[in-house]
Amino acid sequence: MKIRILTLFPEMFDKTLGSSILQRAIDNGYLDIQSLNIRDFSDSKHKKVDDYPYGGGPGMVMTPQPVFDCHKQALENLDSIEAPRTIYMSPKGKVFNQKLAQELSKEKALIFICGHYEGIDQRIIDTLVTDEISIGDYVLTGGEIPAMAVVDAVARLIPGVLSQEESYKDESFYNGLLEYPQYTRPQDFRGMTVPDVLTSGNHKDIDEWRFRQSVELTRNRRPDLLKDFVVPKDKEKLFKKITIEEKDRK
Amino acid sequence: MKIRILTLFPEMFDKTLGSSILQRAIDNGYLDIQSLNIRDFSDSKHKKVDDYPYGGGPGMVMTPQPVFDCHKQALENLDSIEAPRTIYMSPKGKVFNQKLAQELSKEKALIFICGHYEGIDQRIIDTLVTDEISIGDYVLTGGEIPAMAVVDAVARLIPGVLSQEESYKDESFYNGLLEYPQYTRPQDFRGMTVPDVLTSGNHKDIDEWRFRQSVELTRNRRPDLLKDFVVPKDKEKLFKKITIEEKDRK
Repeated sequence: MKIRILTLFPEMFDKTLGSSILQRAIDNGYLDIQSLNIRDFSDSKHKKVDDYPYGGGPGMVMTPQPVFDCHKQALENLDSIEAPRTIYMSPKGKVFNQKLAQELSKEKALIFICGHYEGIDQRIIDTLVTDEISIGDYVLTGGEIPAMAVVDAVARLIPGVLSQEESYKDESFYNGLLEYPQYTRPQDFRGMTVPDVLTSGNHKDIDEWRFRQSVELTRNRRPDLLKDFVVPKDKEKLFKKITIEEKDRK
Repeated sequence: MKIRILTLFPEMFDKTLGSSILQRAIDNGYLDIQSLNIRDFSDSKHKKVDDYPYGGGPGMVMTPQPVFDCHKQALENLDSIEAPRTIYMSPKGKVFNQKLAQELSKEKALIFICGHYEGIDQRIIDTLVTDEISIGDYVLTGGEIPAMAVVDAVARLIPGVLSQEESYKDESFYNGLLEYPQYTRPQDFRGMTVPDVLTSGNHKDIDEWRFRQSVELTRNRRPDLLKDFVVPKDKEKLFKKITIEEKDRK
């Protein structure tokens, strides 16, 4: 997948996307990421990229010309790819989730426009943007950190980027429940011990304990996730039992 | 505010937090951010930081010792501050939003533990962590990008970090509606023009147009936000009118 990021802060992407998994994907040729500095495309003498909003109000708004010309360059750069999706990271957008990450991971190329939340000229959005995406209901300085989150989540889903074991993990993780607690060596760390069941060697008990932990954690913290949860066939009896016990406790 | 970030990838934070507003906050002494490399605190000969999970399963789990000792160092480093909150970025956590950002912005210090989503020993969470926070329902490689998002959103709310004009913007932005479209110079860009009302000079019309755009956009894209929206006194009549018109159109 080819990813082009249009931003006023290209240096923000230098190190950030270099964490183990993404760097490995780049090294192995699954991923090609380039950032383009919007400011380089400004026609104006002082490389201006913003101006006052029409109609008044606080803040500055990013002007159309540098973004349009930077986007044109990104398209030329991806010339063998037809009509790549252009994503504008915006609090007004569709809320990003794992399903949207899966959808985007099937694309050959993605272009990201990182605006600054003070605003970007609407003509950019109306003309160039195919998807407005928000990573959550909070105010950030710019679209750069949101773009990193989307790139990370999407890149992990490109076939070959994760090892089979890692992919399996992702899948089980997003089977719709929150993950059960994890423990590793040592068994006794400064007096804090690992639950006995995990060192019992009894795989059926371990499997049941983990499922129970996941169900109870999800019910406590994110009951909204349970309505979409499809109980696996081999867990139906256990799921009923947990549900009845939870009701009894109330 | 003092922020300490415990991570296996401290270099990810080098450039990322250097975007205009955060850098200005650091330069002006409102913000002091340091990242600590968890690996530096590993007792083991090869600076090991993870091990296989008890009970089996794919992936590696971060071991308690390096994180506990790194956290101890962070606490010593913040010795004048009593019991700083320790945040673990986790998909199991409470979903981050602007209200939680506001709450965190009142703290004197915050410690972030960035795990890798393959897992972190539960004893770390049970003993050191005061808040588990998720930035959204998607799977990322690690807690680093989520921590950046939280730091950015929180830092903007520390008094003095944003100019008065910028703060005002944030506030109006999060009055509960999505923002109206913004336009800047030129009035005609390659045949695309700015809506006439914005160049009319009639402030009442501009104000009404913007409010209407916000209401309609929110109703279309995020009707869930409208249930918490408190209509400003001077907009009650207009809000009723818009609502009736929208119903008529259906």
